[in-house]
Amino acid sequence: ADLPPKPVRLGLCAACHGETGMAQMPGAPNLAGQRLDYLRKALQEYRDGTRNVPLMRTAIGPLNDAELDQLARWYSAQTPQPQAAAHP
Amino acid sequence: ADLPPKPVRLGLCAACHGETGMAQMPGAPNLAGQRLDYLRKALQEYRDGTRNVPLMRTAIGPLNDAELDQLARWYSAQTPQPQAAAHP
Repeated sequence: ADLPPKPVRLGLCAACHGETGMAQMPGAPNLAGQRLDYLRKALQEYRDGTRNVPLMRTAIGPLNDAELDQLARWYSAQTPQPQAAAHP
Repeated sequence: ADLPPKPVRLGLCAACHGETGMAQMPGAPNLAGQRLDYLRKALQEYRDGTRNVPLMRTAIGPLNDAELDQLARWYSAQTPQPQAAAHP
């Protein structure tokens, strides 16, 4: 009920992180319920290259600050879902 | 019931990330239930400086691979707790 509007750019992120922030791919972190301040900073650092992850820079390089903020709010507002335990 | 043994070095992490992976400090991410592969890689990258976060490098620089692995398993096995919504 308290969810922010779905970001226009969500599809780009959802391929790996899921629409609700539960990762869909090995190597991708869960984002559901992550702290908003952390997500905002991480997105800015991926975009400017401080966090040097080429895939992320390619994905969000074209996004503006408002779009990054929408994405951070969306994922932070999601509730983490239980997952099957993975203990490789 | 499926929790791994509590890592000897947990206190170092818990000051900011909490014993159960729910962040205690602004800027620190939640770790509870995060994907194991992601946590392992992140810890290695903080230790070797690929992720250049001086506080993290200071904190885990002295830890060996087995200790990093224990910490990754511990936090990945935790269940995320609901938090008050933060929408600053």
